[in-house]
Amino acid sequence: MLLTGASGRVGEAILRRLGEKYDWRLLDREPPTGEPDHEYVVADVTDEEAVREAVEGMDAVVHLAGDPRPEAPWDSVLANNIDGTQTVVAAAANAGVEKFVFASSNHAVGAFETDERVPELYRTDDEFRLDGTELPRPSNLYGVGKVAGETLCRYYHDETGMSTVCVRVGNLTEDHPPIDYERGQAMWLSYRDCAHLFERCLEADYEYEIVYGISDNDRKYYSIERAREVLGYDPQDNSVEY
Amino acid sequence: MLLTGASGRVGEAILRRLGEKYDWRLLDREPPTGEPDHEYVVADVTDEEAVREAVEGMDAVVHLAGDPRPEAPWDSVLANNIDGTQTVVAAAANAGVEKFVFASSNHAVGAFETDERVPELYRTDDEFRLDGTELPRPSNLYGVGKVAGETLCRYYHDETGMSTVCVRVGNLTEDHPPIDYERGQAMWLSYRDCAHLFERCLEADYEYEIVYGISDNDRKYYSIERAREVLGYDPQDNSVEY
Repeated sequence: MLLTGASGRVGEAILRRLGEKYDWRLLDREPPTGEPDHEYVVADVTDEEAVREAVEGMDAVVHLAGDPRPEAPWDSVLANNIDGTQTVVAAAANAGVEKFVFASSNHAVGAFETDERVPELYRTDDEFRLDGTELPRPSNLYGVGKVAGETLCRYYHDETGMSTVCVRVGNLTEDHPPIDYERGQAMWLSYRDCAHLFERCLEADYEYEIVYGISDNDRKYYSIERAREVLGYDPQDNSVEY
Repeated sequence: MLLTGASGRVGEAILRRLGEKYDWRLLDREPPTGEPDHEYVVADVTDEEAVREAVEGMDAVVHLAGDPRPEAPWDSVLANNIDGTQTVVAAAANAGVEKFVFASSNHAVGAFETDERVPELYRTDDEFRLDGTELPRPSNLYGVGKVAGETLCRYYHDETGMSTVCVRVGNLTEDHPPIDYERGQAMWLSYRDCAHLFERCLEADYEYEIVYGISDNDRKYYSIERAREVLGYDPQDNSVEY
């Protein structure tokens, strides 16, 4: 399994629980801090040759790399998130990788949170749900880049049949959910549920999917039904319990 | 009105019928052939400063510029179609332009034409319709770039309220529809209907729209109902009549 952007927070959540389960090759543009537990490639995802070598022989690719800042400027989004994703997904599709898991983001649909809908949207009794069939409405250029990544995934799936899933990751935190932040509680994803969700992305059978990556929060405006049905996602955490 | 990519075929169809009706500023990276009938700016749409000057004082922008080749390589799509559209739509939104019309493409949804659906899809009695509410499925990297452009349009509309319409242009030809090419007949757009559709995009009131730009062909798998309802599009041509 190749994990790009391995040194980021999603990578940490995944490796902490799945580090032993799979034979990982990690890729990050930053060198490891300390001695890594796995094969580690220092490369930028826009480096076509390095990426081509890194996907060689991999059954699956989990693509997390990219500028993680919601406020990332366009030039960085264009290079790191759009061109970087094209480089990785094209290399994976060409190498015959079987499963491709793309870390998309809640920012792909952030503009659904209109003044008319919030803050009620973030509360338990509000019934509005996004389920991944709606047309994206990004709330920033970072979100535009994530939608472009999803579109690239769709294209390469249609071209090659590579199983591809885009996970719109919510608000990932290591311990308890965000405090005094209703939006963050509504889209909370615990480390435990994050690792489980990506494990399901590596184990389940699917064609092309867009799913929301949040815990089973009482507050929610993202449906996790599709992730349950197609991936067998069975989250254990709920931000209301904190 | 600013018209980018003015020297292309869509620009030709628009200017032939609407050249006199509006006060145009044309922009193209190629110099005009002969003496232009309108103010003409030679600039690349990725040139931020030139674009900022070009949108200055414009009520509307019709953005046609980009690499027009369905087989355009990724580097050109990334620069000309994705970065170029970001440059133009951001400049328009920032300058307070009221209407932004983006020439998208049938290639944004080309991968719906699966082996199971074609060639029946292209025939009169087939009832399958795409209407713009479906998630895009591009058939090439050019189509990926057009979807990215639509997503940028959605973002800037949500940010600023600028009226924005994405027209998924079909198969535009000057005289008769494509011969012995069912797909081209199904998505045919006559020059006359093309000019009329863009005129409606400049005249109608709307928020954010995705519409299909085809004539009223008997053969069709793109719905033109949304264009009729929201824009008042009333096409005169039909590929069956040739």
